[in-house]
Amino acid sequence: MSRLADALMRPRSVALVGASDDPAKTSGRPQRFLAESGYAGRVMPVNPGRATVQGQQAWPSLAALPEVPDHVFILSPTDSVAAALGECVRLGVPLVTVLADGFSEEGEEGRSREQELRALLEGSRTRLVGPSSIGVVNPRNGLLLTANAAFAEPQARDGRVFVASHSGSMIGALVSRGRARGIGFAGLVSVGNEADLSLGEICEATLDDEGIDGYLLFLESMRHAHALHRFAAAAAARGKPVVAYKLGRSEAAARMAVTHTGALAGEDAVADAFLKDCGIARVGVLDALLETLPLARRVSLRSVRRSRVGVVTTTGGGAAMAVDQLGIRGVTVEPPSEATLARLNSAGVKARPGTVLDLTLAGTRAEVMSAALDVMLSAPEFDLVLATIGSSARLQPELAVAPLLRAGKGEKPLAVMLVPEAPQALATLTEAGIPSFRSPESCADAIAAVFARRPARPPLPHRSAAAGKSLSEFDAYALLDSLDVPHAPAVKLRFDEPLPRLPFEYPVVAKICSADIQHKTEAGGVMLGIRDETSLRDALQQLRANALRHAPSANVEEALVQPMVAGVAEALVGYRVDAEAGPIVMVAAGGIWTELVRERSVRLAPVSVEEAREMVAEVRMLQAAAGRRGQQAGDLEALAQAIAAFSQLATRAEHVLEAEINPLKILPDGVAAVDALVVVAAA
Amino acid sequence: MSRLADALMRPRSVALVGASDDPAKTSGRPQRFLAESGYAGRVMPVNPGRATVQGQQAWPSLAALPEVPDHVFILSPTDSVAAALGECVRLGVPLVTVLADGFSEEGEEGRSREQELRALLEGSRTRLVGPSSIGVVNPRNGLLLTANAAFAEPQARDGRVFVASHSGSMIGALVSRGRARGIGFAGLVSVGNEADLSLGEICEATLDDEGIDGYLLFLESMRHAHALHRFAAAAAARGKPVVAYKLGRSEAAARMAVTHTGALAGEDAVADAFLKDCGIARVGVLDALLETLPLARRVSLRSVRRSRVGVVTTTGGGAAMAVDQLGIRGVTVEPPSEATLARLNSAGVKARPGTVLDLTLAGTRAEVMSAALDVMLSAPEFDLVLATIGSSARLQPELAVAPLLRAGKGEKPLAVMLVPEAPQALATLTEAGIPSFRSPESCADAIAAVFARRPARPPLPHRSAAAGKSLSEFDAYALLDSLDVPHAPAVKLRFDEPLPRLPFEYPVVAKICSADIQHKTEAGGVMLGIRDETSLRDALQQLRANALRHAPSANVEEALVQPMVAGVAEALVGYRVDAEAGPIVMVAAGGIWTELVRERSVRLAPVSVEEAREMVAEVRMLQAAAGRRGQQAGDLEALAQAIAAFSQLATRAEHVLEAEINPLKILPDGVAAVDALVVVAAA
Repeated sequence: MSRLADALMRPRSVALVGASDDPAKTSGRPQRFLAESGYAGRVMPVNPGRATVQGQQAWPSLAALPEVPDHVFILSPTDSVAAALGECVRLGVPLVTVLADGFSEEGEEGRSREQELRALLEGSRTRLVGPSSIGVVNPRNGLLLTANAAFAEPQARDGRVFVASHSGSMIGALVSRGRARGIGFAGLVSVGNEADLSLGEICEATLDDEGIDGYLLFLESMRHAHALHRFAAAAAARGKPVVAYKLGRSEAAARMAVTHTGALAGEDAVADAFLKDCGIARVGVLDALLETLPLARRVSLRSVRRSRVGVVTTTGGGAAMAVDQLGIRGVTVEPPSEATLARLNSAGVKARPGTVLDLTLAGTRAEVMSAALDVMLSAPEFDLVLATIGSSARLQPELAVAPLLRAGKGEKPLAVMLVPEAPQALATLTEAGIPSFRSPESCADAIAAVFARRPARPPLPHRSAAAGKSLSEFDAYALLDSLDVPHAPAVKLRFDEPLPRLPFEYPVVAKICSADIQHKTEAGGVMLGIRDETSLRDALQQLRANALRHAPSANVEEALVQPMVAGVAEALVGYRVDAEAGPIVMVAAGGIWTELVRERSVRLAPVSVEEAREMVAEVRMLQAAAGRRGQQAGDLEALAQAIAAFSQLATRAEHVLEAEINPLKILPDGVAAVDALVVVAAA
Repeated sequence: MSRLADALMRPRSVALVGASDDPAKTSGRPQRFLAESGYAGRVMPVNPGRATVQGQQAWPSLAALPEVPDHVFILSPTDSVAAALGECVRLGVPLVTVLADGFSEEGEEGRSREQELRALLEGSRTRLVGPSSIGVVNPRNGLLLTANAAFAEPQARDGRVFVASHSGSMIGALVSRGRARGIGFAGLVSVGNEADLSLGEICEATLDDEGIDGYLLFLESMRHAHALHRFAAAAAARGKPVVAYKLGRSEAAARMAVTHTGALAGEDAVADAFLKDCGIARVGVLDALLETLPLARRVSLRSVRRSRVGVVTTTGGGAAMAVDQLGIRGVTVEPPSEATLARLNSAGVKARPGTVLDLTLAGTRAEVMSAALDVMLSAPEFDLVLATIGSSARLQPELAVAPLLRAGKGEKPLAVMLVPEAPQALATLTEAGIPSFRSPESCADAIAAVFARRPARPPLPHRSAAAGKSLSEFDAYALLDSLDVPHAPAVKLRFDEPLPRLPFEYPVVAKICSADIQHKTEAGGVMLGIRDETSLRDALQQLRANALRHAPSANVEEALVQPMVAGVAEALVGYRVDAEAGPIVMVAAGGIWTELVRERSVRLAPVSVEEAREMVAEVRMLQAAAGRRGQQAGDLEALAQAIAAFSQLATRAEHVLEAEINPLKILPDGVAAVDALVVVAAA
């Protein structure tokens, strides 16, 4: 275990700076909680005004302490935090947690206060949790280093789940809901503003802790996503699943523009793609945040591509709810095959064809349910079997649960949904590590989230750039050439040179070609449907005049001429180094549909051709190009290849910040970019 | 109270046909439950083989009973049900409930068994619940006339909520979940196959029961929707809210075709429109089925058009979850206005601008929360105030709940979401009738469902027709004329008559016009872009030949000629007398988008122009016609007027079964139908 992990989760000594003598006050709580919880380490209150605090010896300053504490919790007000932190740095304290708020969340002044804290840490070995952290808890050793009122109750249940949360108040909610659900915790950290240690780094520090089986994250934003990515990839490598609830789904729905990849910043679709590509199960139902880990543990990240669910039930209505909720989330319930039905019947289970195996009356008998589960769990058509259990789960919990406990130990994952209020059955199943759910929504949410994960891969090295500069369209095509992304032939002409013979037929399109003019259409810089050489000469003159009127100081020396390309459909393919998620690639339907329908598929870049095919399949509007209603079919395979090739920008030496092909014409045979915008990092 | 309501909910005597002496057996349960529950009426077991059943006197047959029971529960096997029911009819028993399954749900044989039951009832005053009903429960008087194992527990909590369910097993789940949530019931009926009494009729019978405040429905289908509609309108008139959970949301997503309104049959979108138009709050989260009634009671059906939600919170993370879940469901959280912020601050509540009023630290003080709620609930910008409460709800329930209880009594509705597990606070709020929720999902689901209701109106008289016949396109236009739905001019030509002078310019389109040929395109019956009279003559010859080749026996004497109409966009407008929901009207984007995007808006017909405007606004693809990106704008107001006019088919003397305008061209000024299909009831 690292120095950081020790200081975080098992410090030998802690100091409480600004500890109050009043145990009911926020700044008095940590000392009270630590006293009540039986924490075995040394607790040292620091209070310049008192010789004792809550009956314990106190010290006037950090410098006066008899030893350097492993972990200091600064409880004092905002304006005295910097002084205390400075003292910790001087003393070589490994870890400091800061409670006060009033930092980066409070405007310019707060940001500069936070910057001051970071400056103090620079070059030191002291690390910081917070500010605005409600504290750090390890229920395993009674480390209740927290001001969270929720810990006034008897100690949080000890368990194997680690929680990291952007929201301090959600920690209490998770503990109380977890207790009611029989779920205990190995650690809970309120990460606050992440001025130094980010949520990902904090989790990463605990990865070698053998007492931790999995992680629950409550995310308000995708701040410091690179560290989160690194942690998630390392957790996946260790087989420790990560489940996240991230706020902001609805903001995505409200966001209007996708025409320019820049507008994707902070969009929920990017966060969603990021979390899935990190192998994190993102849930959307609060109960599912607590209930998903056992299932995530049972479904290997390597096998997540297939999600065929078989259902066996003792309640028709209950199973129908689960099937419906799964269907809403795109998970299909597979009916038992004829072979499976035959095996069920010969095992003494009366099975009739249908979406689910309905044992409404017989299934309350344990031997029938056992036989049914044996057959279902060994049927090749299912990747997961879900058992929905009715009244018996409440009225005869031991009887109802016994076959589930037995079947849950097998190779193929079993999930259980309890339809009545059945706390005892739920507790027994949870205790045994069987994925179990108290509502159809959390059950379906968990199953969908676990199967939506993609095998995690380590993040690419972080590259940051302050500013970018645009390439001319011609240079952008050169970059596409080097990536093997097809584009329409393009000839560059200088306005002051005679017109050469074009290597393609008329009609053609002529466009201004200048790195100084990005929005060509607005500048009158595009002329379509030019039918012959004379018209082209006129067009070039006109283009130049338009461009100079629009941008008198621009460098306007060249134009670009291309043949007119009539595609079956259009796509928009974008690439961007997202400030949070890193390199991403996206595809959307082009033309008016980009704006109107806002459908797109986003992935972390680079993607394989196979992944790109999945992306194309996710954009319903692109299916218009698949040749319906006797229309000509577009080459969607070529589109997928172009997306995969384009996404390789993420691995290129050129530091491309942003690139967009809009439109990429989808042809009956192949694709062709007919406009491209590329922004590279300024040198 | 009616004879039916009395027999259903407060029979003076009940008979149990086929009652078993073994109280653990399904057919033994009702007698046991009735004995344990203290039901005061007379209970008469009927069993030809025993003098006593479970220690009580038994009778060999219904005829041998000392009195005619008010309600008979037939517990005997499927094949003996008809005989017992026949006996009930002969004796004049008012109400019979049948437990056995094996009727309409089991193929042809089962259907004929069910038909036999219906035949027995004909002309009698005996009514039937079931078959396949698990029974009828009235917790208020201990009437546990049910074989539902869930009632083996101490009696269901007595309350003011009536439950009707297509699923028997869900009754138990609702009782146990209701008990855990502090919700009691005034009655629970498993309606079974609805061979006679439908769910709507059963609920309707209880409408005058003053002990019933509201209704929860668990629906597997929209069977007998006309009765449900009548009940819902009557319930709305009495101010008794109805909340429904209906299965089948995901089937809608899976359904492929919307090009023909016939394909909408059984579609979830129709059920959704139906329920909303009946004033029923349709929830999608199981917990919300139990939690929504108090809110539905507080939000008047007359005021549901506006749904501006204000949020006050003692937990930032908790409120953010609620805002997110509301946003997903299209409900917008309104920030407090400047005036409201000023009033808050002068009331001593430190309020900062933002989406929600965040009192994370101060709000745990009751007087601060009280002051904040007073101001928020009197602010004109909110139609509803939601309070999300953190740890204090668990740790200091009395303190946390007091200001909510006080504020909940005011004129404007208050809803409360508890973020931690806080059973005590939840129970107190529930007891006081304050709408309260244990999860962000059920909270947002309830708010969205309650505001999605539309003022209920009584159903139109039921018209049924076995068969329909198509009108020719020309006759269909005549019907559109009479409705004031614009269409392209159309001239009917006879093949055997000379070509008249057309009242419009070339180019024109010529189509075969025959009631025998509905799918003109498949028959080669449409010729586009005819430029002059000579071409028209050729085209007519060709059309006739094509039609006769396609359908040699068809009556092919006429063609229809119209000018070519180039619209800005196309819509599909459909009307249908749905077998379940009754007359419905729908609009979707026309052309390829109908099939590809499957977006449409459905309402019960007729609709006002205002409702039609809402429908147009709901179809995102139609917004393509609103004139974006410098394109020409289409006349969406004319579209709305056409939809409203078309929907008047529901009130017309002509019994139109189905009508479709596809496409309705949306012009810069006006709209024009260029094809129409109408099916009227065969005489």
